[in-house]
Amino acid sequence: MDIKLKILKKRKFKNPVLICGMPGSGYVGKLAADHLLNIFESSAICEIQSDYFPPQIATNKGIVQTMSNKVYHIETGKTKNDILVLTGDSQPITERGNYLVSEKIVEYAKNLGIKKIFTLAAYITGEFVNEPKVYGTATEKKHVRILKNKGVKIMNQGMITGMNGILIGTAKIKGIEAYSLLGETSGYMIDPKSSKAILESLSKILNLKINLKELSNKIEEANELINQVDEMKTKTEGIEYSNRDNSSQYIN
Amino acid sequence: MDIKLKILKKRKFKNPVLICGMPGSGYVGKLAADHLLNIFESSAICEIQSDYFPPQIATNKGIVQTMSNKVYHIETGKTKNDILVLTGDSQPITERGNYLVSEKIVEYAKNLGIKKIFTLAAYITGEFVNEPKVYGTATEKKHVRILKNKGVKIMNQGMITGMNGILIGTAKIKGIEAYSLLGETSGYMIDPKSSKAILESLSKILNLKINLKELSNKIEEANELINQVDEMKTKTEGIEYSNRDNSSQYIN
Amino acid sequence: MDIKLKILKKRKFKNPVLICGMPGSGYVGKLAADHLLNIFESSAICEIQSDYFPPQIATNKGIVQTMSNKVYHIETGKTKNDILVLTGDSQPITERGNYLVSEKIVEYAKNLGIKKIFTLAAYITGEFVNEPKVYGTATEKKHVRILKNKGVKIMNQGMITGMNGILIGTAKIKGIEAYSLLGETSGYMIDPKSSKAILESLSKILNLKINLKELSNKIEEANELINQVDEMKTKTEGIEYSNRDNSSQYIN
Amino acid sequence: MDIKLKILKKRKFKNPVLICGMPGSGYVGKLAADHLLNIFESSAICEIQSDYFPPQIATNKGIVQTMSNKVYHIETGKTKNDILVLTGDSQPITERGNYLVSEKIVEYAKNLGIKKIFTLAAYITGEFVNEPKVYGTATEKKHVRILKNKGVKIMNQGMITGMNGILIGTAKIKGIEAYSLLGETSGYMIDPKSSKAILESLSKILNLKINLKELSNKIEEANELINQVDEMKTKTEGIEYSNRDNSSQYIN
Repeated sequence: MDIKLKILKKRKFKNPVLICGMPGSGYVGKLAADHLLNIFESSAICEIQSDYFPPQIATNKGIVQTMSNKVYHIETGKTKNDILVLTGDSQPITERGNYLVSEKIVEYAKNLGIKKIFTLAAYITGEFVNEPKVYGTATEKKHVRILKNKGVKIMNQGMITGMNGILIGTAKIKGIEAYSLLGETSGYMIDPKSSKAILESLSKILNLKINLKELSNKIEEANELINQVDEMKTKTEGIEYSNRDNSSQYIN
Repeated sequence: MDIKLKILKKRKFKNPVLICGMPGSGYVGKLAADHLLNIFESSAICEIQSDYFPPQIATNKGIVQTMSNKVYHIETGKTKNDILVLTGDSQPITERGNYLVSEKIVEYAKNLGIKKIFTLAAYITGEFVNEPKVYGTATEKKHVRILKNKGVKIMNQGMITGMNGILIGTAKIKGIEAYSLLGETSGYMIDPKSSKAILESLSKILNLKINLKELSNKIEEANELINQVDEMKTKTEGIEYSNRDNSSQYIN
Repeated sequence: MDIKLKILKKRKFKNPVLICGMPGSGYVGKLAADHLLNIFESSAICEIQSDYFPPQIATNKGIVQTMSNKVYHIETGKTKNDILVLTGDSQPITERGNYLVSEKIVEYAKNLGIKKIFTLAAYITGEFVNEPKVYGTATEKKHVRILKNKGVKIMNQGMITGMNGILIGTAKIKGIEAYSLLGETSGYMIDPKSSKAILESLSKILNLKINLKELSNKIEEANELINQVDEMKTKTEGIEYSNRDNSSQYIN
Repeated sequence: MDIKLKILKKRKFKNPVLICGMPGSGYVGKLAADHLLNIFESSAICEIQSDYFPPQIATNKGIVQTMSNKVYHIETGKTKNDILVLTGDSQPITERGNYLVSEKIVEYAKNLGIKKIFTLAAYITGEFVNEPKVYGTATEKKHVRILKNKGVKIMNQGMITGMNGILIGTAKIKGIEAYSLLGETSGYMIDPKSSKAILESLSKILNLKINLKELSNKIEEANELINQVDEMKTKTEGIEYSNRDNSSQYIN
């Protein structure tokens, strides 16, 4: 099999933009992508199967689900750009797999006439953040400036690992404008607050209204969990988390 | 070599069904498959060799045995379906190997006209179970209903790793009806009781009489071992097994 | 590169036999092969290079040595069989590499008209052995009988990992008579005594005189080391080695 | 992708020599290569991209940087040899990747008419060294003599792992004269002093003036760090570093 890209729907799109939210730290990117699929009407247009994914299947209500990534078209109403969303069950598990699957997707995107690719990712801080900032990187200086103008902090130096990094790296090689938006997150738990921050930035950049209400419930649930953790922390006063050091930032 | 599928016997089968029992947790699936080969007359019809298997050979009474998987035809008497059984020395050791070997086998099954594939696997509970339940998953909603009607508990959400999962996932992709039956087992030791429970379910689903007497001896042996472990546990009262937590279920 | 087999000398051989001694536990096989190259006049006839070997080079007196396996012809005088010896710097480091390199070598051996392949390996006991026994396995029942007749103990059940196993497994698949001779060894240190025991068995099987004097020095050196270890052991009386249990035998 | 070698500038060179400084222990080789690019005018003539590199991108002032190795031409003024320098973000992460990328580079070098290849590497001592010696190895006896004549200590026996080793090994196989120069270094930290020592040797061998002033600042910074470590050591007097033993030398 290697990598199989199955076209589910053949359609032409107007100045299409691809937004990628893969599972990773804090599920920041995947939560954001899933939110877009929830609030807008969406239909899958392409499915990626690969033996680079983990060797397993999932069940949902007893029905076998094979590992896959999918590209969806979401109906955002009259906008300048048609919006496509990439998300999936898993990233490839080997290093080469990350390159090969990303390359296949970027080729598909290029054939589809995609003008811009965004990856949504996590910027790990090692501590809980009340108001997560959004960091950004882009393929060219003038695109970095666009991010800056929209209030995104520029990621001066750092690494983005996995598909969130390789997708924009491959886009650069193939001459497609690409961006990564990384929301600050502790790295300790699922973080819808960080996903919301990313979507707010994306909303400004794409000039696209995104209803963020449904993310609020998830944020409150997460906050309760953090409070519980904080209480536990108070009880063990004087003991420092080994990972609370800002200097050991890991991004993906 | 990669993967070599050697046809040992060329034959036509009537509505053939493939039952797969690979070595895995508790040897639940392999014990069940081996039992079928023991109680029915069987002949190997196909051998799979691959450099994705562990790099080793086994000896049996001094004779070199290369690693392989084999498909057998078992003589079950006059039934609606011819029954084929897949089992072997080992699953592939790399992730891609699991996909590639499974794909080869499902292709072979398709060419043979296989109508249904069953994988027999373990549902790990982390504690010893007196009357193991059988969980199931299938490729389509209507097939899930069949399992339900035969008393199989439906696996609502979970993962099936390795060939037991990939075989039915690949079957789904290639349009073959497929099922996995997973017997509850502790995950600590070889578990013929779980294998028996699976075969009882399989017997109902296929409407096939399976003599289960020979499994009883093995169950008694296993029970004795459990009793010894339990005694040791009583002696070390107050000490809990670190893995006895029900929440950490792992399935394969 | 993958695997490159470079013919260094093209020659016809009379009933040639291939003896393989790869580096492994106790260097039992490699020491034996090197001894053959030392006592007989030898010339390399084939070199195997591969990117499955460890990614490194060695230096010898400042000169770069690339990783390789080599086949040598040794001049044993007038015998029934021409004798070839395979040894090298390293076994492949990945599982597939073990299969692929072994396959290449067995194909080469087949083209050369090799009638019999022997691999020389270690049978790990977990404790120091005064008079190491030699275990054996072969591709067919009648060949097992030959080993028995020459005083080799038959390896009833067990695994042989790495090239020592795969070479005879591949030979079996390709229809070449093959044997493995495994000398008992502790698994803790280099063991020329075990190599000597293997060569004594090989000498009987091939009806080939092998001068074993030069191995004696090495055995004495090793014995001194064992005595030192034993003294240390006496001083720490009452403390048992964790691996001294005979039941946990590992063979390669 | 596998490995993509992109020619950035097509030019003919006069008796060209390739100097390779890849990231590794103490950054000894990379620091040396970077120094050459800093003090001489340089232009990239070839870029190597590969999915054997780590699956990540870096950002620099917000701009996406894909992983790569590059070959540069440096303007050294009127010398007997045109000088090319290879360096990059990373070595391949798999064993085969090391072989395949190195082979691609040596092929490119051969087509370019490269007469000599040097790799610059670290010789790990396990303790801080005041005046690091430079060890060397070469593809042939007569080339080893050249090193000796220039004051390089000959590496009698040892291993060189990764591209620093494979590049000269592959060069040997393809008939190109090749050398490795290894500067003594502790293995604990970045070591510009070792890089300087290597460049002094290289300067003599190539009869090329190399301004080493800029490395002095880096050495002073590193010395301060070592002094701090030494102070800490004095305070914990009597406690020995576990790795201070000269016998456990590891080279790469």
